[in-house]
Amino acid sequence: MRAVQLLAYDGKPESIAVAEIPVPRPGPDEVLVRVFASTINPSDLMFIRGLYGFKKPLPAVPGFEGSGTVVEAGTGLMSRFLKGRRIACAAADPKVTGGMWAEYVVTLAQLCVPLRKNVDLEQGAALLINPMTAWGLMHEARRGRHRAVVQTAAASALGRMIVRLGKRFSIPVINVVRRAEQVELLRRLDVEYIVNSSEPEFDNRLRELCHQLGASIGFDAVAGEMSARVLRAQPQGSRLLVYGALSLQPSQADPASLIFERKRLEGFWLTAWLRSRTLLGQLRLARQIQELLPSDLKTDFQAKVPLQEAGRALQQYAANMTAGKVLLMP
Amino acid sequence: MRAVQLLAYDGKPESIAVAEIPVPRPGPDEVLVRVFASTINPSDLMFIRGLYGFKKPLPAVPGFEGSGTVVEAGTGLMSRFLKGRRIACAAADPKVTGGMWAEYVVTLAQLCVPLRKNVDLEQGAALLINPMTAWGLMHEARRGRHRAVVQTAAASALGRMIVRLGKRFSIPVINVVRRAEQVELLRRLDVEYIVNSSEPEFDNRLRELCHQLGASIGFDAVAGEMSARVLRAQPQGSRLLVYGALSLQPSQADPASLIFERKRLEGFWLTAWLRSRTLLGQLRLARQIQELLPSDLKTDFQAKVPLQEAGRALQQYAANMTAGKVLLMP
Repeated sequence: MRAVQLLAYDGKPESIAVAEIPVPRPGPDEVLVRVFASTINPSDLMFIRGLYGFKKPLPAVPGFEGSGTVVEAGTGLMSRFLKGRRIACAAADPKVTGGMWAEYVVTLAQLCVPLRKNVDLEQGAALLINPMTAWGLMHEARRGRHRAVVQTAAASALGRMIVRLGKRFSIPVINVVRRAEQVELLRRLDVEYIVNSSEPEFDNRLRELCHQLGASIGFDAVAGEMSARVLRAQPQGSRLLVYGALSLQPSQADPASLIFERKRLEGFWLTAWLRSRTLLGQLRLARQIQELLPSDLKTDFQAKVPLQEAGRALQQYAANMTAGKVLLMP
Repeated sequence: MRAVQLLAYDGKPESIAVAEIPVPRPGPDEVLVRVFASTINPSDLMFIRGLYGFKKPLPAVPGFEGSGTVVEAGTGLMSRFLKGRRIACAAADPKVTGGMWAEYVVTLAQLCVPLRKNVDLEQGAALLINPMTAWGLMHEARRGRHRAVVQTAAASALGRMIVRLGKRFSIPVINVVRRAEQVELLRRLDVEYIVNSSEPEFDNRLRELCHQLGASIGFDAVAGEMSARVLRAQPQGSRLLVYGALSLQPSQADPASLIFERKRLEGFWLTAWLRSRTLLGQLRLARQIQELLPSDLKTDFQAKVPLQEAGRALQQYAANMTAGKVLLMP
C-alpha cells in the first residue's frame, strides 16, 4: 500500500516521504481500516516535530485521525461488530504503531466510532480530534460551573466549535485572535467578544472582559507568552488549560498570578480525557457529537490533496490553519 | 519614630530612605507594637520591587515580619488580650498600612502570635514567614499523600527547614541548588539527595531521582526556566507549587508536561493559606511551630544591622541569602 513515511522527528520537509509498504494485519481487538480520508491537525504537526506526548519507531506513518471502512477484524467482540462498517477512527495512542496517512491502517477497535447514516465519510474524517476536544473542554467549563470562558486561537476550526458550543450552553466565550482578518472572520460569524492580541490595548481589554464576565476557565492552544497574558487577565482562582502549543514555546505564567491570585496552569489531552470515561460514556459522547456534526461541530475544509502530495498539503495547512482543514485522500 | 521609607517600587537603592515619621495609633482590632527586631525576606525584596501581590501607598514602610511588645491596644478582645505581651507579628496584608522596618508598627491583632517563654524575641522575629511557609508546604505534601518532595533553592533558610521537616515526617526531599558551595553546605547537614543545576547531568539525575522516589509534589522558589525543568523531571500527574521568584522571571512549563503528563503549575501564598484556616487551627499551628523553633524550624542569622543602615542590610542580604537572615534592629 501507499503510505506517508516520517524519517526523522525534525519537522524538515525532506523528512516526509511517500513509500510502498506492506498492508498491516490486525491483531486481537484491532481492525484493518481502508482509509477514505485523513486530516492534518496541529497535533500532527507537533508529532512530526517530535513534540507530541509520545514517539513511534521510525520510519513511522503519521496521521492521528481519519475515516474509512473496516475491511478486516481481529478477534474480539468490538472489532467483529465493526467489520464492514463506515467509521471514524484515531491513531493518537502509543499502542497504535501505524498512522492514518496511508491507504490502510490497523488501529484499536476502541478508537473507532461507527458513523451514523447522516454523517458522510468526509465529515467523519474530522469527527474525533476537533469536535471531541471542543466538547471535552466545554464539558470542563460546565462541570466546574464557570460563568464564562476565555480562549486563544479562537479563529481556528476548534476555536469556532467552542464559540458555537458556548452559544448552545449559554456560556459567554471571550475570543483571542492575533490578526485583523481573524477579527473580521469571527465578526461575520456573529461573535460578540473578540480581542486582538496585536493591538496595544489588548491586555487591558482582555482583563476587563474576563473580570466582567467571570472567565475563570481558559483554553489555550498557543502557549508561550500568551499563557501568561491570559492568566494575568483572568479573575482570582482561575484555571488555564493548555491544549496546544502553536507558538512552539514553553507556556509562561507570572509567579504573582500563581502565588497571590491562586491561578493554575494545567493541560488538556483528549486521549487522557477519553480514557478517563466509561465505555458507555464514550458511546453516548459519540452519539451527541454526531448529532451536532452538521451544526455546532461542523468542520470547514480548505483543500483535498492526494496522499502522494502530503508534503505540499502539510505546508499549505501550516501556512494558514484558519482557512480550514486539509484532507489527505489515498 | 524612626522608620524605613520606600519612595518608589523600582528596587533602586536610592528609593530606600530612613526618616522620622509620627508613631501610628491602633484602631479597632489592631495593636501598636514596639518593634524589637524585624527580618528581611525574599518576599520583602519582591515587595520593594513592586512584584508582590499588593502595593501599599507611597511612601510606605516595608517589612513583613518581626517581633516586639504590644504597648497599646485598640478595642476588641484579641487586641486587649495581647497588651503587654511579647509577640511575633506580620504586616504582609493589604489591610496593614504600616510595615515592620520601624520602631513601632500598627498591625492586626490576628496577625500576632504570643511568644512562649522558651522563645526569645530574636528567634521570634523570624517565626512567621519561613517556618510557617515550610510547615504549610509540607502540610500540602502530607495531605496529598505524596511519597516524596522536590524543592528548588534548597540551601535557603526555608529550604533547610523543609529538609528537616522531611526527616521528621519521613518524606524524602530532593534538593536542587545551583552552586557547589550549596552542595557542600547541605552535605554537612547530612542531606541525602542533592542535585546541582549548573552541572551538565542535572536534568537526567533530577528526573531519575524524582521518578525513583515518586516526587509528585514540588516547591519552587526560583521560577523562570527552573519551573519547567523541575516539572519535566517529575512523574506523571505531578504538581509544582511556586512560592517565590528568585529569578525574577515568569515561571515556564512545557506544554508537553501539562498536556500529555497531566502536570500542574500552581502557587502557594502563606497569607491565603493562613486565611483559609480556622482561628483554632491557627492557634494550634502557632503552638506546633514554636515547639519546633529550636530544632527543625531554627533560623540562622548572618548579621544584625541597625535600622538606619537598612540600605546596606538589604544589599548584604540580597548578595548572599544562603548565609542566613539579616535582622534589622531599631
